Amino acid sequence: MAIQYIFEILGTIVFAISGSLAAGEKSTGQDWFGVTFIAFITSIGGGSLRDMLLGSYPLVWINDVNFIYAIFFGILLMRLFYTYLDKYRKQLMLFDTMGIALFTILGTEKTLELGFHPVIAAIMGMFTAVMGGVFRDMLTNSIPVIFRKEIYATACLAGAILFLILYQFDVHRTLNFILSGSLIMAIRVLAVYYHWSIPKFR
Amino acid sequence: MAIQYIFEILGTIVFAISGSLAAGEKSTGQDWFGVTFIAFITSIGGGSLRDMLLGSYPLVWINDVNFIYAIFFGILLMRLFYTYLDKYRKQLMLFDTMGIALFTILGTEKTLELGFHPVIAAIMGMFTAVMGGVFRDMLTNSIPVIFRKEIYATACLAGAILFLILYQFDVHRTLNFILSGSLIMAIRVLAVYYHWSIPKFR
Amino acid sequence: MAIQYIFEILGTIVFAISGSLAAGEKSTGQDWFGVTFIAFITSIGGGSLRDMLLGSYPLVWINDVNFIYAIFFGILLMRLFYTYLDKYRKQLMLFDTMGIALFTILGTEKTLELGFHPVIAAIMGMFTAVMGGVFRDMLTNSIPVIFRKEIYATACLAGAILFLILYQFDVHRTLNFILSGSLIMAIRVLAVYYHWSIPKFR
Repeated sequence: MAIQYIFEILGTIVFAISGSLAAGEKSTGQDWFGVTFIAFITSIGGGSLRDMLLGSYPLVWINDVNFIYAIFFGILLMRLFYTYLDKYRKQLMLFDTMGIALFTILGTEKTLELGFHPVIAAIMGMFTAVMGGVFRDMLTNSIPVIFRKEIYATACLAGAILFLILYQFDVHRTLNFILSGSLIMAIRVLAVYYHWSIPKFR
Repeated sequence: MAIQYIFEILGTIVFAISGSLAAGEKSTGQDWFGVTFIAFITSIGGGSLRDMLLGSYPLVWINDVNFIYAIFFGILLMRLFYTYLDKYRKQLMLFDTMGIALFTILGTEKTLELGFHPVIAAIMGMFTAVMGGVFRDMLTNSIPVIFRKEIYATACLAGAILFLILYQFDVHRTLNFILSGSLIMAIRVLAVYYHWSIPKFR
Repeated sequence: MAIQYIFEILGTIVFAISGSLAAGEKSTGQDWFGVTFIAFITSIGGGSLRDMLLGSYPLVWINDVNFIYAIFFGILLMRLFYTYLDKYRKQLMLFDTMGIALFTILGTEKTLELGFHPVIAAIMGMFTAVMGGVFRDMLTNSIPVIFRKEIYATACLAGAILFLILYQFDVHRTLNFILSGSLIMAIRVLAVYYHWSIPKFR
């Protein structure tokens, strides 16, 4: 339980960093309030949507203000090391990748343990990971991240499905977290590197 | 009850077809993931918003994965017959019209039977029908369907109001469904055909 | 209790007026349905999001249709005096300012009295005030009001924090309402007048 909590807080910090980085790239919302708001929505949007869809109250961050402080901490980190970090923009993409991997697995497991169908768990895991970014993009009038070229949400779905299969076979939780999370990160990194994309519908 | 279930599944398939058709017209989200995501949001967005506003948990599709399969089935149908169906784009608008008629009546009745005020029932019926499309349009940065020229949401409101009146007079449920649903479809088809629009506010 | 109810209804009317005024400025949604829909979302969007995040059911306007009638009344007022009011567009901004002041305080107090942490109460107070406008702007594809230049949401946060401090010191409720509400209105009016803005993140 303690380790899961650390991961949730870590995922929140990581998403706040990637959210405030993304906010800086937008033409709008570049003042302190705007960046904070966007980092906030990026961090808590996906998990909040999941819990509101599942009717699982109270929402995690509403019941535990440490998540709010984690977001502020992530934004502050970003601000302090901005000039330094700006050169490593590409490498920082890894924060977002870590965030989606963590949130997919945590969201899938939570939904499953609330007693919902595995198909719902996979969808909710993916929602937890990507919908915060989708809300951020809708707020700033940009094309939602899930519709851009390189594989993104599909990597989360693949990781969620692997998690569900290993869970079925009683694979140890920590091992399952590592394997499923690594799959998401590997697919995402390779997709960006080799410009992988999903086949066209038509 | 069984007939209502068939209608709900049918409405979902119909909305998945119209959603994946609409996704194909957008400049974004044209790969398999994007089309599936958009069809999914179009199908379940309105009903989910209604149930989240009413606090009516669990959401229909979360409790019964057949709705998820219905969406996949609609998308697959669309994919298989795409070349054929593409010529009949205008006629396919009928799927969307059937979808909004079905969902308006089902949403209005559900809200009423949960014990809410008829005014709320009419609003929720209209939301069930149109908000999935609104979310789809917000996701793809287009003007929401309800703000375009021809009468759309107002047809749903008219059908919901007719349903509420006939319900008050104890008209048989099946007859009420047929009459109210037909009113929505008739207004919508005539509106497109004769370019009817709502008077300007100013 | 009675006074709070009057304020809530008043805030709803005031937001419906400012919402239908804003709808008239947009390139979309200028027919009767569009303006009504936008005024509706502007009025009830923030409070609905707050209650859905907190899991506080039933939503205020769903349980009491007077809020719906208040919205219609606000829209009607706007329509009747449109030609007259159009000249006083700048002065009408005051309606929006009154609306955000009222809704911030009401939202902060409600969250606090539901037993949530003061940090959550401040966030929810601000959400109550600004998220209806954010939804309106997302629907009409414009830059959300909170990201525009002059101080807006931050004024709400400042008022919510003052309310929380005075609440802690057992200041009389009416006095607290007047002081905290005035702070929000003062900051907002001065920000527009003197073009105050939040410092840039970078």
